[in-house]
Amino acid sequence: MSDSVKPGPHFLQLPGPTTTPLRMMEAIARPTINHRGPEFRALTVEVLEGIRTIFKTSGPVIIYPSSGTGAWEAALVNALSPGDAVLMYETGWFATLWCRLARKIGLEPELLAGDWRSPVDAEAIGARLREDKAHRIKAVCVVHNETSTGVTSDIAAVRRAIDAAGHPALLMADLVSSLASVDYRHDEWGVDVAVGGSQKGLMLPPGLSFNALSEKAIRAAETSRMARAYWDWAEMLDANRRGFFPYTPAINLLQGLRVAIEMLNEEGLDAVFARHRRAAAATRAAVARWGFETQCSDATAHSPVLTAVRMPEGVSADAVRDHALERCNMSLGNGLGQLDDRVFRIGHLGDFSEPLLLGTIAGIEAALGYAGVAHRRGGTEAAIAALSGTGMAGAADMAA
Amino acid sequence: MSDSVKPGPHFLQLPGPTTTPLRMMEAIARPTINHRGPEFRALTVEVLEGIRTIFKTSGPVIIYPSSGTGAWEAALVNALSPGDAVLMYETGWFATLWCRLARKIGLEPELLAGDWRSPVDAEAIGARLREDKAHRIKAVCVVHNETSTGVTSDIAAVRRAIDAAGHPALLMADLVSSLASVDYRHDEWGVDVAVGGSQKGLMLPPGLSFNALSEKAIRAAETSRMARAYWDWAEMLDANRRGFFPYTPAINLLQGLRVAIEMLNEEGLDAVFARHRRAAAATRAAVARWGFETQCSDATAHSPVLTAVRMPEGVSADAVRDHALERCNMSLGNGLGQLDDRVFRIGHLGDFSEPLLLGTIAGIEAALGYAGVAHRRGGTEAAIAALSGTGMAGAADMAA
Amino acid sequence: MSDSVKPGPHFLQLPGPTTTPLRMMEAIARPTINHRGPEFRALTVEVLEGIRTIFKTSGPVIIYPSSGTGAWEAALVNALSPGDAVLMYETGWFATLWCRLARKIGLEPELLAGDWRSPVDAEAIGARLREDKAHRIKAVCVVHNETSTGVTSDIAAVRRAIDAAGHPALLMADLVSSLASVDYRHDEWGVDVAVGGSQKGLMLPPGLSFNALSEKAIRAAETSRMARAYWDWAEMLDANRRGFFPYTPAINLLQGLRVAIEMLNEEGLDAVFARHRRAAAATRAAVARWGFETQCSDATAHSPVLTAVRMPEGVSADAVRDHALERCNMSLGNGLGQLDDRVFRIGHLGDFSEPLLLGTIAGIEAALGYAGVAHRRGGTEAAIAALSGTGMAGAADMAA
Amino acid sequence: MSDSVKPGPHFLQLPGPTTTPLRMMEAIARPTINHRGPEFRALTVEVLEGIRTIFKTSGPVIIYPSSGTGAWEAALVNALSPGDAVLMYETGWFATLWCRLARKIGLEPELLAGDWRSPVDAEAIGARLREDKAHRIKAVCVVHNETSTGVTSDIAAVRRAIDAAGHPALLMADLVSSLASVDYRHDEWGVDVAVGGSQKGLMLPPGLSFNALSEKAIRAAETSRMARAYWDWAEMLDANRRGFFPYTPAINLLQGLRVAIEMLNEEGLDAVFARHRRAAAATRAAVARWGFETQCSDATAHSPVLTAVRMPEGVSADAVRDHALERCNMSLGNGLGQLDDRVFRIGHLGDFSEPLLLGTIAGIEAALGYAGVAHRRGGTEAAIAALSGTGMAGAADMAA
Repeated sequence: MSDSVKPGPHFLQLPGPTTTPLRMMEAIARPTINHRGPEFRALTVEVLEGIRTIFKTSGPVIIYPSSGTGAWEAALVNALSPGDAVLMYETGWFATLWCRLARKIGLEPELLAGDWRSPVDAEAIGARLREDKAHRIKAVCVVHNETSTGVTSDIAAVRRAIDAAGHPALLMADLVSSLASVDYRHDEWGVDVAVGGSQKGLMLPPGLSFNALSEKAIRAAETSRMARAYWDWAEMLDANRRGFFPYTPAINLLQGLRVAIEMLNEEGLDAVFARHRRAAAATRAAVARWGFETQCSDATAHSPVLTAVRMPEGVSADAVRDHALERCNMSLGNGLGQLDDRVFRIGHLGDFSEPLLLGTIAGIEAALGYAGVAHRRGGTEAAIAALSGTGMAGAADMAA
Repeated sequence: MSDSVKPGPHFLQLPGPTTTPLRMMEAIARPTINHRGPEFRALTVEVLEGIRTIFKTSGPVIIYPSSGTGAWEAALVNALSPGDAVLMYETGWFATLWCRLARKIGLEPELLAGDWRSPVDAEAIGARLREDKAHRIKAVCVVHNETSTGVTSDIAAVRRAIDAAGHPALLMADLVSSLASVDYRHDEWGVDVAVGGSQKGLMLPPGLSFNALSEKAIRAAETSRMARAYWDWAEMLDANRRGFFPYTPAINLLQGLRVAIEMLNEEGLDAVFARHRRAAAATRAAVARWGFETQCSDATAHSPVLTAVRMPEGVSADAVRDHALERCNMSLGNGLGQLDDRVFRIGHLGDFSEPLLLGTIAGIEAALGYAGVAHRRGGTEAAIAALSGTGMAGAADMAA
Repeated sequence: MSDSVKPGPHFLQLPGPTTTPLRMMEAIARPTINHRGPEFRALTVEVLEGIRTIFKTSGPVIIYPSSGTGAWEAALVNALSPGDAVLMYETGWFATLWCRLARKIGLEPELLAGDWRSPVDAEAIGARLREDKAHRIKAVCVVHNETSTGVTSDIAAVRRAIDAAGHPALLMADLVSSLASVDYRHDEWGVDVAVGGSQKGLMLPPGLSFNALSEKAIRAAETSRMARAYWDWAEMLDANRRGFFPYTPAINLLQGLRVAIEMLNEEGLDAVFARHRRAAAATRAAVARWGFETQCSDATAHSPVLTAVRMPEGVSADAVRDHALERCNMSLGNGLGQLDDRVFRIGHLGDFSEPLLLGTIAGIEAALGYAGVAHRRGGTEAAIAALSGTGMAGAADMAA
Repeated sequence: MSDSVKPGPHFLQLPGPTTTPLRMMEAIARPTINHRGPEFRALTVEVLEGIRTIFKTSGPVIIYPSSGTGAWEAALVNALSPGDAVLMYETGWFATLWCRLARKIGLEPELLAGDWRSPVDAEAIGARLREDKAHRIKAVCVVHNETSTGVTSDIAAVRRAIDAAGHPALLMADLVSSLASVDYRHDEWGVDVAVGGSQKGLMLPPGLSFNALSEKAIRAAETSRMARAYWDWAEMLDANRRGFFPYTPAINLLQGLRVAIEMLNEEGLDAVFARHRRAAAATRAAVARWGFETQCSDATAHSPVLTAVRMPEGVSADAVRDHALERCNMSLGNGLGQLDDRVFRIGHLGDFSEPLLLGTIAGIEAALGYAGVAHRRGGTEAAIAALSGTGMAGAADMAA
């Protein structure tokens, strides 16, 4: 085995943070502007308006200078009161973390068990809500795209289940890794609080997070009794109405957010979503060719954003990742929680072109070889065929 | 009056955010790296170690992806319990805001009245603590450099007053606008929690905030009973020990923070502080020449970071700021709270050179003229003389 | 004297290279594109069209990947033949250099003597041409803005003198330091070859140069007999017609040139010229106040681009420059040729705002003090007054 | 066929210009510095010294602000006199262009015919020189790496042939596309003038070119009689000795050149060369798998820098390139001269990582499919196997 090729651009193929396009980085690296001046007010108005097109909502979207975890906390502390019951669903690691956070801040979350390979079971949620005659459950919290497993859930189905149960619980959805990569319709789907982050489909560095609010959520916040200041929606909404923020915002990231919104709308959200789906299908074609399973076991729930690849028994997923990093200058996502060292995760979201995706897949195929992991070759070919949409990229057969 | 000169670099002469040096912007605009990989771990270790040299502490410093307001909240929710009494001192607008935040999250703050022109009165704090025989007051919270007034307080004196009163209260200090611009000695001065932000003396864009902790503060957090998750010191300290963060940090700003620490240590903190003092002295020389008062009325407490300039009765400070912006492409800080339209604030902190400072002063002098505000001319000359350290920049007299 | 203030942005106050605006630097730092692809062709068409608006010509403009010296050579080797006589005028150092270059490449230049303080004497040129009955002189070459002295000449007057003499010589003008800073009208003034560079009024880094051509110049090139390849207009014009270049161009600088043209047209060339004139007048007001002479001794010929300041007998101009660099982080232009150490040159061109200009002047005033050069103080005040257009920037008198 | 994936980074896979690493772009985008100041002098000294390590010479290297064509001209006009005979070898398009340039500037070049698929025939050169008893031939000019064909020639063998012929001709080598990518030893191989460019292995944007000189070349220049000014070595060497340039250099590109030299020496030239060889071998493995011929027909002369791929009779190479551009966001080099539309050229030089190379190859494989060009699939797999150095990247057979 010869020496590795170390130079060249790093391939950051995580399911977030993702590669930030130069145009966005330029905006971020421009001089910080006065957060109390007219230029900033115009920026505020523009991004607050623009981000609503991404969430597909006519309601307000709160932008925090924080990571997505902060927006999880914000959703809960604004709309709920100490001791409130919250119903969650164990899609994977991030669902589990959100549950833990809810408990830490004084709520009583209940986590419906899941197998970390399937989407949210809306029926199970409906059933649990029907049991809750007293309406002790104040919110249902689900993860749209579970970043630890590569499983996407049907949020609209959860809303239907809640409604069918005649239950008044708020519906909260974690969009951290789906926003701007997977179709999401805040108003149409009846979500009360959506939680987003900057470093995934928005293609920004981490540091901004979001809460998109329904009318019902805003009303709930008026009577909720959790202590809050930094995360307080009311102060934020009030300041936003005047074009400002109640405290110094992450100005430069907002400069980048403006560009993110522009770029997404230039390409068109539907085109963006289709591109992610194609990339995901091509990636799965490669995984299948290699002879591996995806962590997602439900064919209808594969994530357009990432693919978690299960390693055979006895094979270390981290060893593949180490070889990808050392030999191929490529970062892959690691297994989280119970999937530690069992899967590696391929991010195919944000700003990517066809050769970038194919280079990622080919690089992984090379890394599998370097790591000595038994696999069928031809994964990249399978991905090319999948991208071509015909199963046949060329006129001549491979066997020719 | 002729047309304005609009092109050219904007002069961002706020008391924060400040101009970010290109070297730091380059680091921020470099590709986001994997926050779970070895390269990031090395970065974490380096910045966590380095930031301690800026706070002059051997204890841990927490870095949040948030603005400074978040770090205010973090200081309180970690070390205190619901209903705790907190003693604060009204140095100005930001002291008032911190007090409001404390009340919002369920504490019982008491704000010792101040005149917004003077530093913290350590004696008054001592006196109040001596009255508190039951030790209901759990923390004393003071602002080191009050950004709304340009007054710097003596933090060590507050510690001495607390000790002299034999009171066990924690000492918390807001360093948001003083950190890395004004001498501060966390360990030596016996501060328990110091609160910092990125967009002032550290010269970064906003988006990072800090809590420097004493042993006593860490112990207090072990028994405190405020609900917390995002701000929780214990989880952060635990993750930091392994070189990571409990949630996705603001990676790119941390890349910039590394450079900030490097640059400050290259110049030397003492040289940095002296540079700020010289700039402040030169600015005050100009203000005096113009015939205006500074908001700070205590000659021993002038801020090295900013100068708030009082306009004569009937003169709008905002009109001067508007002319500075429109005609001179320069942002000045506005008056806050009761000082609305009464003062404008000149930031002279972070990364500035002599001609940048003089250009700022000359630009303000020009703006005073454009705004029709009566003033004595010669402010820039006075600043030049002050910078030269002799009162005489040249061999010939001005009157010659 | 206290320690110097070293950090902060460098003030590059040369008469070129000038400060490059961030927006332009961003374009330059974007990925190099394929110089044979459709995107580049569109860029070529755009900049070739756009640069004509800057020269105010309907004819072609050649863009070389070279410094301005290359464009001097290009002008001569395309339009002339070995041994041709060329009439030049000694406005200063750069006129002298151009003359030297002409001799090196095999022409016979004649340099009409000048005093380095005055503009081109069009009458003297006319007189000389009238003597040249045999029309041995094939070209008259003059410098529009002599960068070594700060003297601007009347190019249209030279054309009138040539025409009045009934002489067929080509008129060549060096615009290196005037292009896009001083009014210039290629077609209207009847210039045959204009020579430009990127690093002055165009605000780009050095590396591009220009030849704007008249019909007469193009025809002259058809029969001229100097050997040429790299500089050959015919090949360049031919390739340009197809949207390309005969060899790899300086792609990234062309990316920047597009932005330069955009920015100049956004501001409007007349506004740009007026801004330069105002800055020059303000600078001269400061120089007069200090008690110094400008190198330009003709009040009608002061350059809008730079001011060369004569130091009194026995005073080293370089010592002032050294103090400006060491103490004020500012680069000033040095004296060239016979003006070595006699003058320093202040660049006030390209992208500058009012406080940048005032900071420059104040910084020089400080440097004069640091260098111990006797001067009257108040230069910055005088500049402020000049900028205000009334001689009175404020309501109160300086003497008040 | 589904829609194309358009966003994401462009793959600029030309044989130059190549991708410029961010670290280098940062240096280029830093403020232009004073080209007559001490900071620039230090830069000059550093790059003039450093560039010698890249050419492997103890002699001087001239750096021009021009493209490589300028350095071709410079080599000839400095060392030769009008009417001198020059012996060249037709390796392909660029050899032909150099010959044309020599004729244009007044030399008498003789181009030994080649088939555009083979390297320089040193024997043929030796034979021709032996015929030249009168030593009319003053220089032998050969292209090290012919960018139009992907053929690398043995420069040392040419020197041996000249010496064996006992002929005094100078040896000039065009390194434009080989410098810093292919092993080159200026002094050891006895080359008199080497011609280089910035936008290939040095990974900079275009705009700098080089002449590396032997003692013999410098002496030849002392008596040569071609007119020259911009390209004059003597003036350049004289100015360089003082740390400056005779005219304004391309300052920002020199800032980038410093970083280029640093990066190459950090990786080590031998490692750089080996990386290019591995990439070329992997690319050829893909080409062979697809069932195509390389333009280079000599197995010992394949270029490490680029691979020109011959399309079968009747297949348009440009159609493949168009699909690569439109569908895969990738630029490939076109066929030049007689190879127009017959070949496409894959650049694999400069700053590239393994997944970037594999993404390029996979992208081309996809483009072949999109263009409907019959080919065997599996090219990327073959490249992976070649990179792994064993022909076996994994434990399982492809046929499994």
